[in-house]
Amino acid sequence: MVKISLIGAGSVVWSMMVIRDLSLTKTLTGSKVTLMDIDEKRLNMSYNLALRYIKEVKADLKIEKTVDRKKALDGADFVINAVKIDGYRFMEDERQIGESHGYYRGVDDRVSDYYGGFAAYRQLNFFLDLAKDMSKICPNAWYLQVANPVFEGTTVVHRYGGVKAVGICDGSLAYKKLLKVLKVDEKDVEVQVGGFNHCVWLTKFLYKGKDAYPLIDKWIAEESENYWRSDEYFAQPWNDQMSRAAVEMYRLYGTFPLGDTTRSVSPWWFHTDLKTKEKWFASGGPDSEVGWTMYLYSLKDRTDELKKVYENPDFKITDAFPPEKSQEALVPFIESIVSKKASRLILNVPNNGSIEGLPDDVMVEIPVKVDGKGISNEKIGKIPSKVMIHVMMPRWQRMEWILQSFKDGDKQSLILGLAEDHRTKTYEQVKALVDDLLSQEWNSELKKHYS
Amino acid sequence: MVKISLIGAGSVVWSMMVIRDLSLTKTLTGSKVTLMDIDEKRLNMSYNLALRYIKEVKADLKIEKTVDRKKALDGADFVINAVKIDGYRFMEDERQIGESHGYYRGVDDRVSDYYGGFAAYRQLNFFLDLAKDMSKICPNAWYLQVANPVFEGTTVVHRYGGVKAVGICDGSLAYKKLLKVLKVDEKDVEVQVGGFNHCVWLTKFLYKGKDAYPLIDKWIAEESENYWRSDEYFAQPWNDQMSRAAVEMYRLYGTFPLGDTTRSVSPWWFHTDLKTKEKWFASGGPDSEVGWTMYLYSLKDRTDELKKVYENPDFKITDAFPPEKSQEALVPFIESIVSKKASRLILNVPNNGSIEGLPDDVMVEIPVKVDGKGISNEKIGKIPSKVMIHVMMPRWQRMEWILQSFKDGDKQSLILGLAEDHRTKTYEQVKALVDDLLSQEWNSELKKHYS
Repeated sequence: MVKISLIGAGSVVWSMMVIRDLSLTKTLTGSKVTLMDIDEKRLNMSYNLALRYIKEVKADLKIEKTVDRKKALDGADFVINAVKIDGYRFMEDERQIGESHGYYRGVDDRVSDYYGGFAAYRQLNFFLDLAKDMSKICPNAWYLQVANPVFEGTTVVHRYGGVKAVGICDGSLAYKKLLKVLKVDEKDVEVQVGGFNHCVWLTKFLYKGKDAYPLIDKWIAEESENYWRSDEYFAQPWNDQMSRAAVEMYRLYGTFPLGDTTRSVSPWWFHTDLKTKEKWFASGGPDSEVGWTMYLYSLKDRTDELKKVYENPDFKITDAFPPEKSQEALVPFIESIVSKKASRLILNVPNNGSIEGLPDDVMVEIPVKVDGKGISNEKIGKIPSKVMIHVMMPRWQRMEWILQSFKDGDKQSLILGLAEDHRTKTYEQVKALVDDLLSQEWNSELKKHYS
Repeated sequence: MVKISLIGAGSVVWSMMVIRDLSLTKTLTGSKVTLMDIDEKRLNMSYNLALRYIKEVKADLKIEKTVDRKKALDGADFVINAVKIDGYRFMEDERQIGESHGYYRGVDDRVSDYYGGFAAYRQLNFFLDLAKDMSKICPNAWYLQVANPVFEGTTVVHRYGGVKAVGICDGSLAYKKLLKVLKVDEKDVEVQVGGFNHCVWLTKFLYKGKDAYPLIDKWIAEESENYWRSDEYFAQPWNDQMSRAAVEMYRLYGTFPLGDTTRSVSPWWFHTDLKTKEKWFASGGPDSEVGWTMYLYSLKDRTDELKKVYENPDFKITDAFPPEKSQEALVPFIESIVSKKASRLILNVPNNGSIEGLPDDVMVEIPVKVDGKGISNEKIGKIPSKVMIHVMMPRWQRMEWILQSFKDGDKQSLILGLAEDHRTKTYEQVKALVDDLLSQEWNSELKKHYS
């Protein structure tokens, strides 16, 4: 019997997605799923909904719940890490401190501010702690990280955690959105992606065996302007796969970016103020004042909907979560390992020579073959030069910076990295910012770590 | 008989330095030295002074001159490249164009503006051309580059030139200045340096077998302020080894920088205006308005002095160039290869695993053993993290950028690299700058290359 443990299962939307995918995967019939969270109230909600879900769809899964992490890890074959320490609790405060020092939308990474030198501390610290527990309690289990930051987090766990780490993100699946806009059928295309999480590129794109980039060029020339005026685009800040930002990045670097890449590694001059963000992204994109507010509302809507189902035992949970598999690679990964049936998935895995010019121990987001033997990386080879030099190398350097300052508790390094932010006008400015952030009550642990 | 060819021998000061060192190296007695330059007037001056020099010191060297590069390469064992295409002819114009677009002291690298995306084109183009000639005419000869940019230039020749490339620079010998200031004897210390040319660091420093960094700390605490007030420091913009800039970089990165490192890879906030430069460097350092003017004057003084000797056959050339060996590694390198007598020299060589985390085909400045078998790299291992992450990785990325835009004639890449300059305020600004530079008459070849 396979044991799958979900750490951070109080995130109801996410847990239900996993439960649904597991329910619909026949080869995993009979598996035990352990939901673990320190927030008992939220955990109970996930547990209740999960039990009702498997009953409604008649799935044979054993669902357990626990607030004890070690219990969850005991005997686990797969450990899914979906934890966001403190949620978005201090994010707006940190953002406001950033803005007061001259950093529009805060100093952390553009992917919703949960990414950079500050908030990343809590995440990385937790990831390593969990991995170290695993290495004692269930050393052969797979560590599957869906929590952000995936790039820094899986790299730190791979290097120092002593477990088999894999990162999972549906970001690069946005190539399906590209296919839809181009009106081409997925069965006619061959797609290869390569890069880091949230910095991933369409490295190969064939339509019926021939280079399909000209289809993108044609769409840009003939249809993009209409698309950008359409309601489909305009009201959807998260719908950035075919944004003006994506097209401009393609023009600048010569390779099409996928998914969150347009948010997280687009050049600084896309992000100087709201007006500029609105030029490049619908509603200024998901990280603007507008887009982020919309996101928080939609998150609340979704949670409220599930709460209603939770509070009414007569409501059908399959109405809120129709029994259709998601696109996430998480459950298919588990399925391939368990069933030994090979599949091609996009995962975050140690590079091990797949992308030329990167060390083996850096996690890359690439297609891999998964089967009973484990993971075999697809050979990506050379990433196109301009992408490699102007985006991937700086992003890699940023990851090394975040990991080094975290590992060494190195405040000076934290300051040096932020000093290179294009918005920094003086060295004094960035020192004052770091001191201000570290002096916040909720950052007392960070302050201790970085002194 | 060994044949040593000096390409760019019209640079009289440099040529005489080589002639002097060769004259004083007994194992190279009988060698043939071919002086080559396309400027016949300057070549004649070097030739005349060289002949007189060997006569005065009674050295047995055969001196030839030629304006024909292929003749110089024919049968050569060592080819020394000291060429600066167009000298400093367009440098001030390019600098003024940079300043008119908001880039104080111009857009090229801080090492005297001969380094970056623009002027580097002419140099790199020449280097590759020379190397390709060598690979046909004298494929087994050593290509010894003293011309800047050493890092980009030797890397491009190593990767694409088809010859054995070595870069030579006396920059890191500035550690001797450090020893002098600390009042320690060279025979009591062990020094290891590591990095790239003009980005080189004191990676190991032992005094009588013990860590000697505390001696630096003591000097900073007790003597530095007096030193910075002394005439020895104040009137010497080139004397930056123990500048405030060097000490601050040591504080920021935890490792002491050597030689031109303080100029070329010090952080952007050292270089925002003359007043700031004057805070960190004596007279604002060699690249400031003040320091650069002083350099040009001293260069003119030196050339005028040699001209006077040239025009007066009765003057003794050994008065201007006393017969004492320089510290340059150039002639000692040739000597060790020829005599097979091992020596430890600081050279720019392909990394080949010497510095952890860098590709094999990137040129690094490190100590090497040279003997009859050639060059064996000293193992440097891990460069201290903060130096690696905050200085070396960005400098490496910059080199890859310069080489890629040069090799591919990629104007878009040129723009992207300059857009990351901390002085760039908008993307339009940097596009206008590049267009302005490329539209200059003297850049017509570049314009063609980058279109």
